[in-house]
Parts: sequence; structure tokens; C-alpha cells
Amino acid sequence: MSQNKDAFSTIDTPAVCIDLDVVDANLAKFQAYCDANRLAARPHIKTHKLPAFAHKQVQLGAKGITCQKIGEAEVMVASGIEDVLLTYNIIGQAKLARLKALAARCQLTVVADNQFVLDGLAATFADGPPLRVLVECDSGGGRCGVQTPDDAVALAQAIDGVQGLTFSGLMTYPPKGRIETVRDWLGEATHAFQRAGLSCEVISSGGTPDIWRAHEVSSATEHRAGTYIYNDRSLVVGSTCDWQDCALDVLMTVISRPTETRAVLDGGSKALSSDLYGMQGHGHIREYPAASIPMLSEEHAVVDLSACTGAKPAVGDKVRVVPNHACVVSNLFNSVHGLRDGRVERVFTVEARGLMQ
Amino acid sequence: MSQNKDAFSTIDTPAVCIDLDVVDANLAKFQAYCDANRLAARPHIKTHKLPAFAHKQVQLGAKGITCQKIGEAEVMVASGIEDVLLTYNIIGQAKLARLKALAARCQLTVVADNQFVLDGLAATFADGPPLRVLVECDSGGGRCGVQTPDDAVALAQAIDGVQGLTFSGLMTYPPKGRIETVRDWLGEATHAFQRAGLSCEVISSGGTPDIWRAHEVSSATEHRAGTYIYNDRSLVVGSTCDWQDCALDVLMTVISRPTETRAVLDGGSKALSSDLYGMQGHGHIREYPAASIPMLSEEHAVVDLSACTGAKPAVGDKVRVVPNHACVVSNLFNSVHGLRDGRVERVFTVEARGLMQ
Repeated sequence: MSQNKDAFSTIDTPAVCIDLDVVDANLAKFQAYCDANRLAARPHIKTHKLPAFAHKQVQLGAKGITCQKIGEAEVMVASGIEDVLLTYNIIGQAKLARLKALAARCQLTVVADNQFVLDGLAATFADGPPLRVLVECDSGGGRCGVQTPDDAVALAQAIDGVQGLTFSGLMTYPPKGRIETVRDWLGEATHAFQRAGLSCEVISSGGTPDIWRAHEVSSATEHRAGTYIYNDRSLVVGSTCDWQDCALDVLMTVISRPTETRAVLDGGSKALSSDLYGMQGHGHIREYPAASIPMLSEEHAVVDLSACTGAKPAVGDKVRVVPNHACVVSNLFNSVHGLRDGRVERVFTVEARGLMQ
Repeated sequence: MSQNKDAFSTIDTPAVCIDLDVVDANLAKFQAYCDANRLAARPHIKTHKLPAFAHKQVQLGAKGITCQKIGEAEVMVASGIEDVLLTYNIIGQAKLARLKALAARCQLTVVADNQFVLDGLAATFADGPPLRVLVECDSGGGRCGVQTPDDAVALAQAIDGVQGLTFSGLMTYPPKGRIETVRDWLGEATHAFQRAGLSCEVISSGGTPDIWRAHEVSSATEHRAGTYIYNDRSLVVGSTCDWQDCALDVLMTVISRPTETRAVLDGGSKALSSDLYGMQGHGHIREYPAASIPMLSEEHAVVDLSACTGAKPAVGDKVRVVPNHACVVSNLFNSVHGLRDGRVERVFTVEARGLMQ
């Protein structure tokens, strides 16, 4: 990142700066890990929301991509992405019509965790080529998903009993730091499916926090990860990566030094989000690692410099903040700057930003 | 809001729904309060980021508007707003050039709390009509601002000593719930300015939490408030308003009911933000007031229904969530739906959304 310092003087703030060399290294490392462990890589594009990076991920060997919302998938498929897993219960006529149009343009797989979702999919896809459906399982994450392996089998049987749908396997969003729980849940499920005479072509787990332990979920056939492309403070604090693996910085300017120990930066919760992820403070300032950001208002970050022993920043200085959570930061900016070799290589419009439907 | 229920069936989710009757009432109430207390109203547009609402505020009697960022002000002035207070230290050649262009198109006032900002303004405005500058004061909020009334006097004298700048008064962002502190700080400052033979044409305070006590800041000549147009859960919990005064709901669909006591909605931190404002949970569900939202992920809200004694929501149901903090929600959506008389009166593009520079 150090060689990119010259570029920072040309970029107005606040702005997202992406180190493209770090992105390349992060993408290659995950793909190599998946290859070595015979896992299909299916990167989640929620983090970057950029077709250019999705294509990079596929070119490196990813089987396809993961999207959370139809709007994201529409942008990616329009850019030429061919294989999409939509890890979301799709409900309502408007979305189902868009889903049907999307399925005609790519290899599409969706998920379901309840009969209502299944009924909507069944009514929409009855008359065309079959739609691939994974059963979403709650392996301890406490979000969506059927609660037991037997419930998963029952929903799979319901899917296979419907004209126009094909049961294709299981999907789970794993709880952070509890890989054994996920392994055991999916292991039990595999046995339940064997007993029922059903095969799971795909068993899809995911997440970046435990990314380098993905192979321990022995029954999984693929891994979805999103944040690994950029990484962030939460992943450094959680020991998944180090600061030099963080590709996304928010470049900010010191706009005020009201006291000896306080600085104020020109981005707040509308630039960094308020995500704490269980941590103290709102980001890591690369130039002042001992500083903390105890308070954000919408357009200000208040920095506590009291632990800084050396020189302190002056009004007008620019600093780089590694955010707590990169995925929500991407979603706040209309564009991001891609840096390489000390210059801005490309300004990317965040094409799938704000597409919540 | 009840008469608008029919409209909800036509709106896909997640979506922001604004009750325009409640907006009208909120705007009228604040203007009447300011009129009765001889305070100039200067609404902060950071909450709605919509020119249409800024014009409503001015038509009702607001002296002008407040913006936090130049990009917001540019949008507002392009729409015909004539009087803008930019409550932000403006730094750097790019922003100063835009500021100069903006000043040529409206009655513009800015703030400064340090010499570096002053030097930039002085260099930019030396050769034209003078720019109005308020000294930003830290009356206890702990963000930007000079620390003492004497420092305020010194900076005011520096402003008046510069060709192209005019000292016009004081501005503060007050700490919530500490109106006496603000009153005392500004009162002392007023005396200090009298002693120095300087007059403060404007003394600008602000904020919605203590909006109905604004008159207690006896030296203030104007009040800036933003959130009052929509209100939100933080203001209900803080007893500034009631649920029926909340104009902004995020309409969401129940996409999963994994357990007897858990529901999952189709919007998460990318729809509601993670702002907690010291509260527990991430919003108030109008249809299920006993429910809580203990966890958000990016595109999911996990609802705890264990305190709900009556009927529970089913998959496919739509619910309205009053967010913790309305201002950051506006900034996450590309458009919002304005509802009146049971129908969508207008879909507004959030024109100043994401303009952080």
C-alpha cells in the first residue's frame, strides 16, 4: 500500500481506496485454498458489488457467484456472469417474475426454508425448465433455515415432488467460530438424506471469519465467502488476516483538532457504518495505530489520540481508516477508487449498490 | 398511517414509506414553535436529502436550510434553495473551488473552528464578495469546535481581519440532554463578545432530541433540526415524540419463521443501519410492538417474538419497522415512497443520497 501514497493526494475525501494488488492476492489465496481442499469456490458479491471483481473471481476458478438479492444478481448476469446462487427466500409476485426472467439468462440456484416460499417458486416455474433449489439449514447461526436434518429431508422431498423444481442440496450460513457445530449439523443431515434415499449434489457453507477452516466442514462441497476480497478490522481482530491483507481503506481528512488528544475526520456513520461486530471503536487508522475512534456522528469521526506517543495528525492531513466491516462500507459509496503502482488505475461505480430488492 | 395500509400491498420490500400527512404536521409544528419563540428555523436536510421537502420547509417559514456537505448543498441550490448554512469545516482545493461556485449562486454561510480552515477560505474568497463565517463552538458535544469563549473571540477577530470573510456569529452542535450546558456556554460567549466589541448576528444551535426546549438556550437566534421531519425510535424512546409522529417506516416482508418465536425480515443493516443510539434492538415493528429485533445481518433482520402474546406474523406478511435512526436510513435507499390518502402520492429519488464530499 505504501507505494500508493502519492495517489492519495489526488483523491478528495472521504473516499474508498482499494489496493488492487491486495485484492488480487486475496482472491488467489482463497481460490488456491479451495482447489487444494476440493471445495468449489462461490464468492459472495455482496462485499464488492462490482461486476469487474466478480469476473476476476470466476476467471480464477470460482464455480459461480453468490448473491443475496435479485437486484444484485440482475446486475451480475447482465455483465455476463453465468452461474448464480441466490441465497435468499424469494417471495411475492414482483420478485418471482424477475426471478423467472433471471433463470432464463443464467444457471440459477435458489434456496428455500419453508413451504410458502416453495409454493411461490412452484407456481412460477411450473411450466419451464426446472429451477435448482437448495434447502437452507440453520446450523446454529440463528437466522433463516430449517431447524433439524429431518425438517431438511421433508422440505427436500416437497421440492422434488413439485413440477418445475429440482432439489439440489443444502445451504447454510454458519455461525462464526463454531465450525464443529456446522460440521456436525451437516454431517447428521448427510446421514438423514442417505437414509431417505436422497442425494445432495451441493452442500454449501460459507463465511469469511472461519474461511481457512472451511475444509473441516467435511461434507461441504462448496464455500461461499464475501469479505475475504477486501478483509476488514473485524477479521484482523478475529485473527483471520493481518492489516496488510486489508484491501479497502476509507481515505479521510483531518478537519479539526479541537484538543490535544482529539481529532475529527470528515467521514462518519454514513461512510463507515455503525457496525461494531463486538469490538470497541469504529475502525483502525493506519497512520496512527494507537488512535481509536470512539464516536461517529453521521459525517464526523471523533478520534481519540491520547494513546499516541509520537507525532499527532494536523488539520488537513489525510489518513486511511480500515473499517470495522468492509461490506457495508462498499454499500455506502457510489464509487470506489482502485489503486495500483502508485496511481488510480480505475474508478469503479458500485453497480449493485443499494439494490435491496 | 392506518389509511395507507392498502398502499403497502403494492410496494415491494424492503422500501421506505413516508407518511406525507405526518411530515406536514411535523414541519408545521417545528415552524410554529420557532415562530412563537422568535427563533429562526433552519432545518437540516441531512435527514431527508430531498429538495421537495427542503422547499416545503422554506415555504413554511424557515430562514434557510442547513447542509453538512457541499454535495448536499449543490443539489439543494440547483433546485432553487437560496439560503444555505454549511456546518462543516471545508478543506482542500477541490472543495474550496466548489464552495466558491456555490457562494455565487446562493446566500451562503460556512463555519470554521481553526486557522487552517480560515486560511483556505481566505485564499479562496479574497477577491470576491465576502463569505459569511460562523465560529463553531464545542459547547459540550465533544466533536468539532473551539473549546472556550475566549478562543471563539480570537477566531472571530481573525475572521474579521481577513479580506473576503465576514464574521457572522456562532454555531454549535449541542450535546443531547444537556441544554443547560449549551445555554451557559453560549451565554458566556455572548458576554465575551460584548467585552471584545464584536456582535454576533447569528447564534445557531440545533438538534432534534431537545427541540422543544430550544428556547431555553436564551442567546440562540436560530435552531437547526433535521430528524424532526421524520422522527424515529430514538426520539420516541427519548420522549421527544410519539409513534404517531414517526413519518418514516421501512416496509419489510417476513421471509422466514424458523421457530415459534423467531421471524426473519427482508432488510438488515443495509436497510436499517446498525445505529443503536444506546438502545437495545434495531427498530420498532408497528404491527407487533412487543417484538424486538435483536440481530441484523446485512440483508436480514432477526425478530424475537417471544414477548408477543397474540397472533404472530406469517411468512409473506408485510410489517412496518420504525428505524432507530431515520437519517441514516434515508441515506441507504435510492428512493422513498411518499404516501397519502391510502396511495403512493409520489416516489422521490433521494437526490442528495451518498454525497459525502
